[in-house]
Amino acid sequence: MGKVRRLGVLTSGGDCAGLNAVIRAVTYRAVRTYGWKVFGIIDGSTGLMERPLRYRELDLDMFSGTMLREGGTFLGTVNRGDPFNYPMPDGSTKDRSLDFVDGFNKLALDALIVIGGDGSMKILSQLCAVGGIGMVGVPKTIDNDVHGTDFAVGFTTAVNVVTEALDRLHPTAASHHRVMILEVMGRDAGHIAINSAISGGADVALIPEVPYRLDSIARKIDEVIREGRNHVLMVVAEGCKTEDGELATKAQSHGQMRYGGIGQYLSEHISNMTDLETRVTSLGHVQRGGTPSTRDRLLASAFGVHAVDMVAEGKLNRMTAWQERGVTDVPLEEVCIGPRSLDPNGTLIKVARGLGIYVGESEA
Amino acid sequence: MGKVRRLGVLTSGGDCAGLNAVIRAVTYRAVRTYGWKVFGIIDGSTGLMERPLRYRELDLDMFSGTMLREGGTFLGTVNRGDPFNYPMPDGSTKDRSLDFVDGFNKLALDALIVIGGDGSMKILSQLCAVGGIGMVGVPKTIDNDVHGTDFAVGFTTAVNVVTEALDRLHPTAASHHRVMILEVMGRDAGHIAINSAISGGADVALIPEVPYRLDSIARKIDEVIREGRNHVLMVVAEGCKTEDGELATKAQSHGQMRYGGIGQYLSEHISNMTDLETRVTSLGHVQRGGTPSTRDRLLASAFGVHAVDMVAEGKLNRMTAWQERGVTDVPLEEVCIGPRSLDPNGTLIKVARGLGIYVGESEA
Amino acid sequence: MGKVRRLGVLTSGGDCAGLNAVIRAVTYRAVRTYGWKVFGIIDGSTGLMERPLRYRELDLDMFSGTMLREGGTFLGTVNRGDPFNYPMPDGSTKDRSLDFVDGFNKLALDALIVIGGDGSMKILSQLCAVGGIGMVGVPKTIDNDVHGTDFAVGFTTAVNVVTEALDRLHPTAASHHRVMILEVMGRDAGHIAINSAISGGADVALIPEVPYRLDSIARKIDEVIREGRNHVLMVVAEGCKTEDGELATKAQSHGQMRYGGIGQYLSEHISNMTDLETRVTSLGHVQRGGTPSTRDRLLASAFGVHAVDMVAEGKLNRMTAWQERGVTDVPLEEVCIGPRSLDPNGTLIKVARGLGIYVGESEA
Amino acid sequence: MGKVRRLGVLTSGGDCAGLNAVIRAVTYRAVRTYGWKVFGIIDGSTGLMERPLRYRELDLDMFSGTMLREGGTFLGTVNRGDPFNYPMPDGSTKDRSLDFVDGFNKLALDALIVIGGDGSMKILSQLCAVGGIGMVGVPKTIDNDVHGTDFAVGFTTAVNVVTEALDRLHPTAASHHRVMILEVMGRDAGHIAINSAISGGADVALIPEVPYRLDSIARKIDEVIREGRNHVLMVVAEGCKTEDGELATKAQSHGQMRYGGIGQYLSEHISNMTDLETRVTSLGHVQRGGTPSTRDRLLASAFGVHAVDMVAEGKLNRMTAWQERGVTDVPLEEVCIGPRSLDPNGTLIKVARGLGIYVGESEA
Repeated sequence: MGKVRRLGVLTSGGDCAGLNAVIRAVTYRAVRTYGWKVFGIIDGSTGLMERPLRYRELDLDMFSGTMLREGGTFLGTVNRGDPFNYPMPDGSTKDRSLDFVDGFNKLALDALIVIGGDGSMKILSQLCAVGGIGMVGVPKTIDNDVHGTDFAVGFTTAVNVVTEALDRLHPTAASHHRVMILEVMGRDAGHIAINSAISGGADVALIPEVPYRLDSIARKIDEVIREGRNHVLMVVAEGCKTEDGELATKAQSHGQMRYGGIGQYLSEHISNMTDLETRVTSLGHVQRGGTPSTRDRLLASAFGVHAVDMVAEGKLNRMTAWQERGVTDVPLEEVCIGPRSLDPNGTLIKVARGLGIYVGESEA
Repeated sequence: MGKVRRLGVLTSGGDCAGLNAVIRAVTYRAVRTYGWKVFGIIDGSTGLMERPLRYRELDLDMFSGTMLREGGTFLGTVNRGDPFNYPMPDGSTKDRSLDFVDGFNKLALDALIVIGGDGSMKILSQLCAVGGIGMVGVPKTIDNDVHGTDFAVGFTTAVNVVTEALDRLHPTAASHHRVMILEVMGRDAGHIAINSAISGGADVALIPEVPYRLDSIARKIDEVIREGRNHVLMVVAEGCKTEDGELATKAQSHGQMRYGGIGQYLSEHISNMTDLETRVTSLGHVQRGGTPSTRDRLLASAFGVHAVDMVAEGKLNRMTAWQERGVTDVPLEEVCIGPRSLDPNGTLIKVARGLGIYVGESEA
Repeated sequence: MGKVRRLGVLTSGGDCAGLNAVIRAVTYRAVRTYGWKVFGIIDGSTGLMERPLRYRELDLDMFSGTMLREGGTFLGTVNRGDPFNYPMPDGSTKDRSLDFVDGFNKLALDALIVIGGDGSMKILSQLCAVGGIGMVGVPKTIDNDVHGTDFAVGFTTAVNVVTEALDRLHPTAASHHRVMILEVMGRDAGHIAINSAISGGADVALIPEVPYRLDSIARKIDEVIREGRNHVLMVVAEGCKTEDGELATKAQSHGQMRYGGIGQYLSEHISNMTDLETRVTSLGHVQRGGTPSTRDRLLASAFGVHAVDMVAEGKLNRMTAWQERGVTDVPLEEVCIGPRSLDPNGTLIKVARGLGIYVGESEA
Repeated sequence: MGKVRRLGVLTSGGDCAGLNAVIRAVTYRAVRTYGWKVFGIIDGSTGLMERPLRYRELDLDMFSGTMLREGGTFLGTVNRGDPFNYPMPDGSTKDRSLDFVDGFNKLALDALIVIGGDGSMKILSQLCAVGGIGMVGVPKTIDNDVHGTDFAVGFTTAVNVVTEALDRLHPTAASHHRVMILEVMGRDAGHIAINSAISGGADVALIPEVPYRLDSIARKIDEVIREGRNHVLMVVAEGCKTEDGELATKAQSHGQMRYGGIGQYLSEHISNMTDLETRVTSLGHVQRGGTPSTRDRLLASAFGVHAVDMVAEGKLNRMTAWQERGVTDVPLEEVCIGPRSLDPNGTLIKVARGLGIYVGESEA
């Protein structure tokens, strides 16, 4: 696609590990292979909406150091609000989508690579549609809940961080005969929880996709103790629910007020139902990860190279994806349909249950 | 000391990384060098108080695997209460110190090595005094607040875990232009906080030893931003205080009710005082550490070997210690005087301030 | 399959990370779900060939500690020679396959789970065929060169170790303006080399599947330097070759005598062809890995559970496999056809070249 | 010291982890506290010797990213030869010390902070003496063999890397019943070897300070096996020697030709003397470390701050040092007396032997 000369790239939404690796791969491919210019937009869509425009030209030299291994995004990803309903200083909101398009045109860009989660894909594809801007998406999110791809950038790093935390909680649980509850990210999907529960040797994994029962958890704890172990590890996604939706809602609105979160809620109930002491840990932003995992660096590199090739071939309004054993791409409209849940009949829940992990009610 | 043939060893108080490495070194030294028998008491002092006695004989083979590298204590350290005021099933308390002495005698032990923090050293030395039991202490605590020794086992591992968390919080703080507050252990002493703040590149370190002021924190944040940075890292020991003791008390009793802890309290105030968003992470039990650091394994090994030598030489009622560049020992009565604070005129606070870190008010 | 009551499991061939995690998953599934007995055979096939039989019954309690996270195999995997041509003390060889079958029968086993690489799959399936023994294979090898599965247990841990080494070599290369050559495992396949080269930011990746040219390497080094970088990272699989097969053979037989290996050979030639100093590192057995990666633990767990289910369902003489996003199984005869090479048209080589990495001659 | 306005800083000799952390601390202290200008000299002394001068002014912003955590030195440390006998293009050598002094004066520097090992301290202090340049040294070396300080920057990171390698070699040794020999840096001193041998659970540690005997090693291996273990870990400093100096010399000159090094030499002899297989790993440049350990970052920070304070106070021609529990300084002439050996009567060798590790002949 000889026409393309100027490529924009931005990161949008919550940061995670591997974003810089994507930007690096985009720059390497565009500059080394195609001889294009690459412009990194600062702080997501706002960099194109604000005046003066905020961006920097990206060259190979920027990546000769440790950028591949650095967490977060050096382009920044500050969210100042929905561009279609942008909050103004006077308290009103305004549709600023044309400012975005105008910024794109002022920079004389030919196409835009957007690295984001499912929410960002939706907003950015709408913004691009306004101006007829050719966009290629690259999926990233620690939650791994983007449709169309087996893996999003940042996910395996988050699973590593959580698994490592379980490795550290295990010996203290065993030394003190405790139930350790680890609350992890996952409001809509249990990908982090189920993966880390298997890898970290947990006994209970609560996920949004499958409702749990407190008495079943207590029964599992009894079972573990009868087998001769004196401690229990639980991984709890922040969005996990009981069968009774209402109770769950209560517990969580509760959580906002009285508890630190679902972990605290479970801790109180479980310590009442068993003889073991309970302790809660909530990993919070540490899960965003720092240094990307080997796998996230590879995924990021594959996506970055492929995204540039897609622009070169004019395959626009699509998102890079990892399926089976390689990189491919999918239409953005198949992606922008909300978060992707864990498949309740997939390998992971089966493996977890096969190991004896309690993953909510089987026949809920 | 030809007479000693049967050596007891127990772990007491909160677990940490490196306890198994001490037990290993004790066993290696006692069995290989002296040909003694070593008995590991289960769950601290309770193992000698309960009937049947709970213990296991330790042999070299137990340590041929990964024990050196495992966190926690394979002997357990469950605390059922003060032996001098032991809680009975009927709700009353009872002095069970003689049960402890009787247990020691039933096992026909010649001496006891106690691995514990300052609280455990005190209780165990009192228990041993009741029965004229020869005791050698080995200091352990992630807080590093044991008198008489530069380092206690478990401390550097905890610092590593906290520093690693800062390494992970840094890129997400930078990507989103945030103030990241990391709440760490340290109710009475700021050893973990000050070490990790220096190693992890924090801008603010709040410790129990030096009162802080909210407006000074806000001023430091402004300064950082004026220097051109868009994010701030804070490490906050759970026991840090404002100048006004009463306010601190309010904040913390507050903390019990309304906040998750001091981190939450600071977060609310700081987000009101600056333009940056704030986020709080509380590492909790993850700080107990899992796999011990290289340094903790070395310290644990040195203490274990030296403790056995002390028994062999009849140097009893003393604690192993690390001073300057080697292992030595100190009398237990010099240790059992409460937690050791950070020296306000020591190298660490000076270094922190030298780097520009805000460590509370200088001339409070 | 109600009949199965006694399940054997053994590890065969070179050790790697995640073997204990497979054994744990097999035991958890067999004991918890099916109520079977599980017998771990010591030191691979030799445990069944020798008298007395060498094995231990596996119970849940063995895995309550850190086994999931421990490298190697606690069952051992000592190879004393080909069972069909077993070396005898007098220097002769003997077919001892019937001893193996007899051992299986003496233990009254119903089926055997074999955790091994492609060589072990072949030998063990032949041994099992002799006695009509029902076997299920679980693929493991750091080289990832087993047919029929996207991933074998142990591979991603090895890639992590190599990538971490590149992360450590990068700053020293940059500080001293050097070409760092990292020699990694891979006699027949370049899976480790290509994955770690991408993840670790290498400039050159030499693999057995694609012949390289020394002058092309020198040209790549020049290119990097013209781009403004002062250092170069190379990952070299031990089995990489030049276009001229004969030269490669000379270099490698050479390697046996004069050089430590292919890395040394390349180092001498490259330092003659460029202005940069060269240094070689050969990671050796460190690549076998220690603590398994999160991914290897998941893979191991999935394979262990599925292998037991296969036995339960009578799906024998097959190997567990990971394909697309889940666990499945393939016939052993499709596996036992030698090592699996890297697909020269697959995603990985394309990504590597897309980033500008030299991966041998494109149109060789 | 109001006069000082312009401070130079350079790194000299082999790189290690923590150099950037020193430079950061120097810059933070000099700029934030004193308001000075700081100039980083590129590639050690050569940056001042070459024309145009090679340097960059250092500001706070350079360190807002990950510099604290990056290995190596971003200033570079390329050695082009002894400045007093500098190799010229025509093959002759020339005293270029006056070029160095002239460069210092051209940059109008007031003082120079030199981060280097014992060799660099010597050369640089001689260079500075030529021009009456005020110098402050900061000790760094993975070998920890600088006189006057308990720790040099980079050492504990190297020990961590070696210990981690032992953690990885242990399970493969155990799985295959092997003697694993790990060759580590340490031509003149055994600091790395003895520390990592204790921390990594080795059975044998050979160091330059204490001669070893092959038959004693074989005896130790027998002992381990009699105790019931089937594998042995050895850590071998590259400069270790037998009692018979001549033999050692032969072995090592031998090493240059026939062996990869002392590890290979030992491997051949040990496999002849025992029933176990042997394997050798040589970590090489990986020991330089990448991301500095928590301890090295703290040490680097303390040294950087203190070095600037020394300049401010006019305490010149001295080196920062860590003694007991804090930072101090020592005269350079006490440092420049060759490498510092391990104290044969110090804690470390005693601890190692107390654990049963063979550390050469006791009464050689």
